[in-house]
Amino acid sequence: MSLAIKDDEVDIVIGALRSDLTIFMNEWRPMFSRFHVIIVKDPDLKEELKIPEGFNLDVYGKPDIDQVVGSSTSILFSGYSCRYFGYLVSRKKYIISVDDDCLPARDPKGFLVDAVAQHISNLTNPATPFFFNTLYDPYAEGADFVRGYPFSLRGGVKCALSCGLWLNLADHDAPTQALKARQRNSRYVDAVMTVPARSLIPISGINIAFEREAVGPALVPALKLAGEGKCRWETMEDIWSGLCVKIVCDHLGLGVKTGLPYIWRTDRGDPIASLKKEWEGVKLMEEVIPFFQSVRLPREATTVEECIIEVANAVKGRLGSMDPVFARAAKAMLDWVKLWQSVGSSSSRSSAV
Amino acid sequence: MSLAIKDDEVDIVIGALRSDLTIFMNEWRPMFSRFHVIIVKDPDLKEELKIPEGFNLDVYGKPDIDQVVGSSTSILFSGYSCRYFGYLVSRKKYIISVDDDCLPARDPKGFLVDAVAQHISNLTNPATPFFFNTLYDPYAEGADFVRGYPFSLRGGVKCALSCGLWLNLADHDAPTQALKARQRNSRYVDAVMTVPARSLIPISGINIAFEREAVGPALVPALKLAGEGKCRWETMEDIWSGLCVKIVCDHLGLGVKTGLPYIWRTDRGDPIASLKKEWEGVKLMEEVIPFFQSVRLPREATTVEECIIEVANAVKGRLGSMDPVFARAAKAMLDWVKLWQSVGSSSSRSSAV
Repeated sequence: MSLAIKDDEVDIVIGALRSDLTIFMNEWRPMFSRFHVIIVKDPDLKEELKIPEGFNLDVYGKPDIDQVVGSSTSILFSGYSCRYFGYLVSRKKYIISVDDDCLPARDPKGFLVDAVAQHISNLTNPATPFFFNTLYDPYAEGADFVRGYPFSLRGGVKCALSCGLWLNLADHDAPTQALKARQRNSRYVDAVMTVPARSLIPISGINIAFEREAVGPALVPALKLAGEGKCRWETMEDIWSGLCVKIVCDHLGLGVKTGLPYIWRTDRGDPIASLKKEWEGVKLMEEVIPFFQSVRLPREATTVEECIIEVANAVKGRLGSMDPVFARAAKAMLDWVKLWQSVGSSSSRSSAV
Repeated sequence: MSLAIKDDEVDIVIGALRSDLTIFMNEWRPMFSRFHVIIVKDPDLKEELKIPEGFNLDVYGKPDIDQVVGSSTSILFSGYSCRYFGYLVSRKKYIISVDDDCLPARDPKGFLVDAVAQHISNLTNPATPFFFNTLYDPYAEGADFVRGYPFSLRGGVKCALSCGLWLNLADHDAPTQALKARQRNSRYVDAVMTVPARSLIPISGINIAFEREAVGPALVPALKLAGEGKCRWETMEDIWSGLCVKIVCDHLGLGVKTGLPYIWRTDRGDPIASLKKEWEGVKLMEEVIPFFQSVRLPREATTVEECIIEVANAVKGRLGSMDPVFARAAKAMLDWVKLWQSVGSSSSRSSAV
């Protein structure tokens, strides 16, 4: 796999929801150590972070967030959303982010999977959202386009987002997790594929990478559930952000890939406790999906920021009266674009120097 | 894998492009022998067929085709299209069809793949065309829907078509085959997935199965290239038919799957000879795809036959003047629907007895 990018074009962004990152960072050391790492501490976490030595990293906590973002914003950087602060302050072209309860996976032959290298390969090879290739990624070694694939589409488009998968504990919602608490994912599917245009997908933030310069503002911490917990299955921020990214990518002609790399996901949280909670996120999806399936962005929206403002206004107009969570999400999206422009665009300029 | 169907609901349809089927049938015996087999001999093939004993089968040749179809039709059942005659005379609910240069594949553990059982599983489990599931087939053992997948869509829809893949010789077009004559596909991707609605796909007829009662008339032998040969890479009939099936399935709310099962595809034909030919099919695709991407079927078209008539009329109107091959395809589609109604619908009645 030839990586056509330089190490200093990548930030690894980790949201720290637990204080002891010793095992996590040591296990990921072979993949992370070449790159700059940004660790953002969940503002709700009281204990000091324990991080092993030997990394090129910056750590951000509540004081940093307060200083950069101020108190006038509607965006909450607590829980899994703390990583978005890292997306905001990054100065790099690409971002790779992995939950802190995930370790490197092994492929069926027993080799450690270099998730960072695979994400970079996914992002730097084109995506093919406008026609389905049955043999998966046509740019993979030994692969190609199949008979019938139009030649005019074989160049592909830029891939903006790469979504990796999970071995061991899959990314289920609370009811599935509670009902199938012992189910483990052991199926290693050796494929990367482009999600077709106009097809929506539940994008998980557990194991993702994106070209920050291309779609950064679309990864937005907007949908905060009233009873959001510190287990993935009690959150929806990444699903919402993923729906935003996908429709923006479809509108701007960018690609989204899913498949390799896998990470190994370990247990966190008590599914039985989750059983007792309201499945607010699950219910919201029934309103959210028809909205995202039908929303159309105007031709005049040609930047990611403009697209997100359009989506935010449509959310406010069409979903705002259904549930206060949507009005808050719309507000957070507008605030995020402003924040990105004040913090992020200045960083783009600085990185261009 | 529980197969919820009876053996007598399936026809295996084989188009015989070569006379000696001994190895082919013997290798497939463990998978085929429980089912009724229909062999249709390419009308261009002069030699007698050699078929080993021990199968429940019917063989059809040129005299049978002439008798059933008559001489007034525009449809040509020569070459790979001979199998469509088998689709027409079948009385079964499901059809499975494999090219006669394919043998059973082995999975990475060395076990023979039962392509028939996998196709039946694909067809009898629901498809999920309206939302993408990142962990592939949610109905597979050990799999499920991931977080964010709307519950209202988890029931899925009927799967009408199952497209299998190829190990060893992949299904490339003539230029790719000529340029990469030594390339072999060795990547076994352990997944079945639904092709999302409104996403077009190059469906290969090499290894497919479908519910004949649901979409039979949409598998139509319509696009016959002027220089069509007896190598897959010199044909387009299945790609055209696949585009028809896909837009009909999208319109009627049916699903199309791709992925497992693999078959082992052996060499046939001389890619260097193909290099010297005009790549008529490759050029046609540049006209064909925009047409299929934009064609819309009217709400009133509620049966497969009505849908195909609508597509045929649109082909005639929008592509007919570009190349005579399209006008002939439109005519063949209309003739096919008539033929299906006269031969096929009487067969439906008889099978309902």
